[in-house]
Amino acid sequence: MSSQPATENRFAQLRRIESSRIFQSVVIGIIILSALTIGAKTYELPPLAEQSLSIMDIAITLFFLIEILFRFAACPDKKRFFLDGWNLFDTLVVVGSLIPLNNSDAVLLGRLLRVFRVLRLVSVVPELRFLINSLLKAIPRMGYIALLMFIIFYIYAAMGSMFFADVDEFLWGDVSIAMLTLFRVATFEDWTDVMYATMEQHPLSWLYYLTFIFLTAFVFLNMMIGAILEVMGEEKNAKEAQSAHDERDEIIQQLQSVQSKLDQLTEKMEKSQS
Amino acid sequence: MSSQPATENRFAQLRRIESSRIFQSVVIGIIILSALTIGAKTYELPPLAEQSLSIMDIAITLFFLIEILFRFAACPDKKRFFLDGWNLFDTLVVVGSLIPLNNSDAVLLGRLLRVFRVLRLVSVVPELRFLINSLLKAIPRMGYIALLMFIIFYIYAAMGSMFFADVDEFLWGDVSIAMLTLFRVATFEDWTDVMYATMEQHPLSWLYYLTFIFLTAFVFLNMMIGAILEVMGEEKNAKEAQSAHDERDEIIQQLQSVQSKLDQLTEKMEKSQS
Amino acid sequence: MSSQPATENRFAQLRRIESSRIFQSVVIGIIILSALTIGAKTYELPPLAEQSLSIMDIAITLFFLIEILFRFAACPDKKRFFLDGWNLFDTLVVVGSLIPLNNSDAVLLGRLLRVFRVLRLVSVVPELRFLINSLLKAIPRMGYIALLMFIIFYIYAAMGSMFFADVDEFLWGDVSIAMLTLFRVATFEDWTDVMYATMEQHPLSWLYYLTFIFLTAFVFLNMMIGAILEVMGEEKNAKEAQSAHDERDEIIQQLQSVQSKLDQLTEKMEKSQS
Amino acid sequence: MSSQPATENRFAQLRRIESSRIFQSVVIGIIILSALTIGAKTYELPPLAEQSLSIMDIAITLFFLIEILFRFAACPDKKRFFLDGWNLFDTLVVVGSLIPLNNSDAVLLGRLLRVFRVLRLVSVVPELRFLINSLLKAIPRMGYIALLMFIIFYIYAAMGSMFFADVDEFLWGDVSIAMLTLFRVATFEDWTDVMYATMEQHPLSWLYYLTFIFLTAFVFLNMMIGAILEVMGEEKNAKEAQSAHDERDEIIQQLQSVQSKLDQLTEKMEKSQS
Repeated sequence: MSSQPATENRFAQLRRIESSRIFQSVVIGIIILSALTIGAKTYELPPLAEQSLSIMDIAITLFFLIEILFRFAACPDKKRFFLDGWNLFDTLVVVGSLIPLNNSDAVLLGRLLRVFRVLRLVSVVPELRFLINSLLKAIPRMGYIALLMFIIFYIYAAMGSMFFADVDEFLWGDVSIAMLTLFRVATFEDWTDVMYATMEQHPLSWLYYLTFIFLTAFVFLNMMIGAILEVMGEEKNAKEAQSAHDERDEIIQQLQSVQSKLDQLTEKMEKSQS
Repeated sequence: MSSQPATENRFAQLRRIESSRIFQSVVIGIIILSALTIGAKTYELPPLAEQSLSIMDIAITLFFLIEILFRFAACPDKKRFFLDGWNLFDTLVVVGSLIPLNNSDAVLLGRLLRVFRVLRLVSVVPELRFLINSLLKAIPRMGYIALLMFIIFYIYAAMGSMFFADVDEFLWGDVSIAMLTLFRVATFEDWTDVMYATMEQHPLSWLYYLTFIFLTAFVFLNMMIGAILEVMGEEKNAKEAQSAHDERDEIIQQLQSVQSKLDQLTEKMEKSQS
Repeated sequence: MSSQPATENRFAQLRRIESSRIFQSVVIGIIILSALTIGAKTYELPPLAEQSLSIMDIAITLFFLIEILFRFAACPDKKRFFLDGWNLFDTLVVVGSLIPLNNSDAVLLGRLLRVFRVLRLVSVVPELRFLINSLLKAIPRMGYIALLMFIIFYIYAAMGSMFFADVDEFLWGDVSIAMLTLFRVATFEDWTDVMYATMEQHPLSWLYYLTFIFLTAFVFLNMMIGAILEVMGEEKNAKEAQSAHDERDEIIQQLQSVQSKLDQLTEKMEKSQS
Repeated sequence: MSSQPATENRFAQLRRIESSRIFQSVVIGIIILSALTIGAKTYELPPLAEQSLSIMDIAITLFFLIEILFRFAACPDKKRFFLDGWNLFDTLVVVGSLIPLNNSDAVLLGRLLRVFRVLRLVSVVPELRFLINSLLKAIPRMGYIALLMFIIFYIYAAMGSMFFADVDEFLWGDVSIAMLTLFRVATFEDWTDVMYATMEQHPLSWLYYLTFIFLTAFVFLNMMIGAILEVMGEEKNAKEAQSAHDERDEIIQQLQSVQSKLDQLTEKMEKSQS
């Protein structure tokens, strides 16, 4: 995109360094070190260790800043650098760490951003990036099922807080608390305790829980089956169509050669007759 | 079906409005608003908010009534309107909301019907309607497995209430309570508490629980595998049969053209000989 | 098999009655009635109802006895009647119900046999019989996986009772109790309570639970995948082999007809040249 | 590999004995006996039984030693004997049992090694060995998913111990304890108790649990679907490619025979014309 061969050359050189095995390994190593310091901070440590962790934290932040600047420099098209979601994420996490931590809220935010640095492992290791991309692709196909699930939860939660609010305010107080309780029932977590409590006042409330469990399990099962089938279908169709095409092509080529031979034969015969 | 072109025209115009993007969006918006008012009523609200919710509720009910009348008017064949399950459901929910709420029972019923209005989202959004239809299609194929599951539950429940009724009246009192307890065991919800209680009087009762868990898990697993296979089989057969057919057709057409050429050749030779 | 046409005729007539819709429906009806009386007995009933249930029980036992004798009479080959597992099961359940109930043990056995009468529903409804047969076919393929699971459970149970017996005699007292505890852990039922108790004395015992959970989950997952693949493979191979065979046959027939035409043509040419 | 036919003969004879049905059955029998003595030791036994178990233990250890020496003798290539993982495992377990048990630590180690003898069943029964090998093959394909899961757990654990350490030191004290707590949440084991405790101080912490549960469930589901598809793909491709190849070969052979016939015909005609 640039007409100067020298710049082009410089970009190529930077890119070569950037994609080299050693550079990648160093970056991964520093990210793991960063993860370990985050983990270490959750333990009670002697003051000396705390101090050395703080120094290490500054060093890591600097390294990440240099690395991101280096990658930005190595990128020939500066605009496209920020259009890539992973680059944007990396920049935000690194720049966020630079904010001075004065009050306690900022400290917490700074620590949170340091935790998200671990996610940089995903953005650096190509196999993990590929995995995440394929997971993200699976989301839209679950969209309407998720909406249906939400509607089921909402209706049952509205009914639950209507009938059971006087039984247990803590579990059925309003529609949002009732949805949390229903999620608990859907994970089978002490759901019978919830049921036995409401059955004392509403003896038929077991119907409410059983229909809810069957409905969610049924929809979930069908979602899973649907997901398996869809992914399988896509993969298979591509492969099969290709193989079937290749096979057919070979047979048809042979058949066309048979026909051309027949045509030649007919022509010859016509010549001999004339 | 009607011979008057004017009426036909009017129907077409109404249908055009009905299936327009804006009309659909407004209906979906009102349904979501209706869902929100239902949810809001489960919270404790100041009197002013309660009043405005009541007014909004009347407005929503009126809107739904007008919408359903409009859709009825737009339908050319009035009889078929009520043969469609979704239309019938919509009408019942809307008409049900019109019943005046005098005594407390009617209030509860009216509130329940308002909850079911959320389900109208399913009847209005075509993707959700399609999803529900495909879920309904999955039910019959699970019929006999469900019957088998019920038989297993019934036999174990009869045995359970026979042996364990004196251990815990609350869990094993009669066959229906025992079935509820077994459903709890099948969801692994505190099942060991149930088992340890009966093992004190019947030391071998762990056999009862383990065989039950293995049986239900085994039948459930086979049901799932069966469902995956059946759905996969249907889908695949349709596609594969089609692609195999297309492929074969092309080859056979080519072969027939070879044969007709051969026939022509033979005919010509016979002519030349005669 | 019998040379007398009269007997043959009689068999045919009996079999016609046996396999008639009405006869089947009556038998299914009586089995369901029998199931209901078993269920009813688990409730506390007034003496009159208890008495009528006893009379009904005798009537049902008699009906089942007559039915089994009828089916035995309708079977042309008496030896093969008992070779069929379902017939043997039916006979055992019905004959067992005839044993007079004197002491309390016999009463319990008699009631148990009456419970198993419900299973006769499986032997009478052909769809359920087919389902059970297909489930039974799935067992051998899970044999070695089950053995492997048992070995894993046994080794962990031996280790568990070796290390944790002094922590909780009730959960880890001996190898069989430890296996039950591990089954509980495998179903995730209050497994953290078990773990926290042992972690107080053996701080690294979380490794024991986590490796156990991962091992069993991993083996179970692979078993499920294996089962899906095996069943799918069988079904598909049969269908695909058939369809591929049919397809190929048609093409090859056409090709052979092309060849025979060519042979005829060559023959004719040779004749014309000679 | 050896030039002396006598030695060769001796090897063959030893191998014949080693692979004989009776030898295999005796070894399996002794392994099961060994497993039973390990199990028996976990019960409280009278001194006489304890003594006989000790004698039996020595006898079993000797038998395993002789068996492994015999198999070593029967192996023609001594170096390759220890390259096989199963042989190495067997030797380690048997030799480990020979260490004299003086102090209490050695006793525990000796008992542990005796427990691992049960695993020899896997190394002796070929079907189980095959099963384990196929399970081991499934591990690498789950590697990156496992890494991703670990990253998710680590980030949530770091956040958890950051926010909730002051709520419950026992559950969220440091990052490793928090990971154990999160594993508990992922198995749905009393996860609501953990949530309700933190929600008292951080009312929005339900977001933390719900996103964690959805993330892990979503990644796990996709891993399972991926595993099913990958295994299925491999198996199918091999089979299908073969069957498609066979089919095509037959058709193409027929087509080539058609072409050679046509060539002959053309040749003959050219001759007749000349």
